Amino acid sequence: MGGKRPFSAVLVCLAVFLGGCGSVFAHDQLPSWNDGPVKTAIINFVTAVTDKDGADYVEPAERIATFDNDGTLWLEYPIYTQLLFAIDRVKTLAPHHPEWKTTQPFKAVLEGDMETVAASGMEGLMKIVMASHAGMTAEQFTEEASQWLATTKQIRFDRTFIELGYQPQLELLEYLRSNGFKTFIVSGGGIAFMRPVSEQMYGIPPEQVVGSSIEEEFVIQDGKYVIVRQPKIHFIDDKAGKPVGINRYIGRRPILAFGNSDGDIEMVEYTMAGEGRRLGLFVHHDDPEREYAYDRKSHVGRMDKALDRAGEEGWIIVSMKDDWKSVFPEQ
Amino acid sequence: MGGKRPFSAVLVCLAVFLGGCGSVFAHDQLPSWNDGPVKTAIINFVTAVTDKDGADYVEPAERIATFDNDGTLWLEYPIYTQLLFAIDRVKTLAPHHPEWKTTQPFKAVLEGDMETVAASGMEGLMKIVMASHAGMTAEQFTEEASQWLATTKQIRFDRTFIELGYQPQLELLEYLRSNGFKTFIVSGGGIAFMRPVSEQMYGIPPEQVVGSSIEEEFVIQDGKYVIVRQPKIHFIDDKAGKPVGINRYIGRRPILAFGNSDGDIEMVEYTMAGEGRRLGLFVHHDDPEREYAYDRKSHVGRMDKALDRAGEEGWIIVSMKDDWKSVFPEQ
Repeated sequence: MGGKRPFSAVLVCLAVFLGGCGSVFAHDQLPSWNDGPVKTAIINFVTAVTDKDGADYVEPAERIATFDNDGTLWLEYPIYTQLLFAIDRVKTLAPHHPEWKTTQPFKAVLEGDMETVAASGMEGLMKIVMASHAGMTAEQFTEEASQWLATTKQIRFDRTFIELGYQPQLELLEYLRSNGFKTFIVSGGGIAFMRPVSEQMYGIPPEQVVGSSIEEEFVIQDGKYVIVRQPKIHFIDDKAGKPVGINRYIGRRPILAFGNSDGDIEMVEYTMAGEGRRLGLFVHHDDPEREYAYDRKSHVGRMDKALDRAGEEGWIIVSMKDDWKSVFPEQ
Repeated sequence: MGGKRPFSAVLVCLAVFLGGCGSVFAHDQLPSWNDGPVKTAIINFVTAVTDKDGADYVEPAERIATFDNDGTLWLEYPIYTQLLFAIDRVKTLAPHHPEWKTTQPFKAVLEGDMETVAASGMEGLMKIVMASHAGMTAEQFTEEASQWLATTKQIRFDRTFIELGYQPQLELLEYLRSNGFKTFIVSGGGIAFMRPVSEQMYGIPPEQVVGSSIEEEFVIQDGKYVIVRQPKIHFIDDKAGKPVGINRYIGRRPILAFGNSDGDIEMVEYTMAGEGRRLGLFVHHDDPEREYAYDRKSHVGRMDKALDRAGEEGWIIVSMKDDWKSVFPEQ
């Protein structure tokens, strides 16, 4: 009998190694999600597609989950983070561009006149983005973006942007991966702006980030082979562009898609239209106390049609207020 | 003493589980590579970048390896596989296109007049590719391509194309992955043509395939949400397009790149120009007995400048004849 002890010790050790005790001592992998129909729906879905003997079983290779970024994984209100970055870059670069003092929309940016910036419309916005996002090498831009994201503080929460990913979503991403899912970002935001921090913030490597992009060129610069960013739009990964981006970058139809605005509708439609069991979700920003409340009339992350259609389509509306126990990670 | 037996049995069992015995009983992971300077260079490189205490150590996340496909992972001679597929598709579709009987280059394709097809140049080739690769959903095309690749036999070797990946490369891909590398295809070939078989042939999932692509649109067709392939080039992943494709899809600079033609030079230049230790390789098709011999004057997979520059650049030329013990997998 005495010989059995070391053997069982090894078994426990093995169990710990294999499953982080997950299967031995069941525990809540989504502690920042309140119990209720939404959390139950998520867990039921994951349980169903990973149950080898069940009718809804999905091979691990096909467990593709896509997440929008702005408003779904990190905050986007009252101004998209990337636009703040662009504005800061314009201010930084201004000494090299004296003409900006008299040219719109740069003049307005430098004077902090956001109404005029907004009034410059898509054309003005594009000028700001191109002036701030092109002309440097890919590696220089990565450095600029990661520096800015790690040091600039969001004004209301007084925390850097890399500390403002939503805690329930970080848990959900990890929960999905621990169940064999491969997690992707599919965002209207710039691919090169998200990649430098996606691994650190979400455990999602750069090659699993899909986003909007500008043209790039391979050139020799100062005797080195580099990629230089060009002031021309290559691809807008928003609305009907999202399924296209998914097919282009991932090459498979997701089985789970998570968004928060009308710009995510096509991604969710595409996901839900595949064969077998699927899950489509939208974060509803209804929590002015802990974050913000905005939906149908917002100029940022507008959710209007998605709210109307969710019921009949079987899309799940996740209430930030009711379904999330906490919003941001503890400091 | 008797109590020790089960314990050691478990230890062996654990070792087998953890490393497939790799670390316990060292064995040659590249059995189809002949011993010599090329094999040694590969092993030395992998050993160096995975040695935590060494000066050349590279974090697993940065161990990105990119492989060209045509002529590097599978055969491309005497005609690119995808062009054969396009020609077969044109023949299959011909009954629905009576006008092709009198329109070039389709007339020539249908009559098997390959000289006229070749003489139709890039414009003619594009017509053939668009007629055969566009107009269907992404999922339909995946089905067509995988069916064709799994059933059509290469004329000289009398084997289907999915059986004609190069055995030494299959071992190298697996060897790299077992050392923490993430392996990618970066090919001038169509991304949608390679993805249906990349996992099965090379252990490379669709989302790790970079290639040329045509435009796609997200639409509702017969009441279903689908991606439909459009007859318009989106991106050519060849020559200077390869580093651009790598940055666009992967977002990191590889540390190892493997090609076989002048179309791979920029990918290798880009790879080698990064900081730290790097490896750039080219397959040289010099084996008419077991495969084909072609290089400087070939219209398919031409390798001319790469041969000239390899010495001074430190690129490794892999002789199919001398460095590969076998070429194709055993049947």
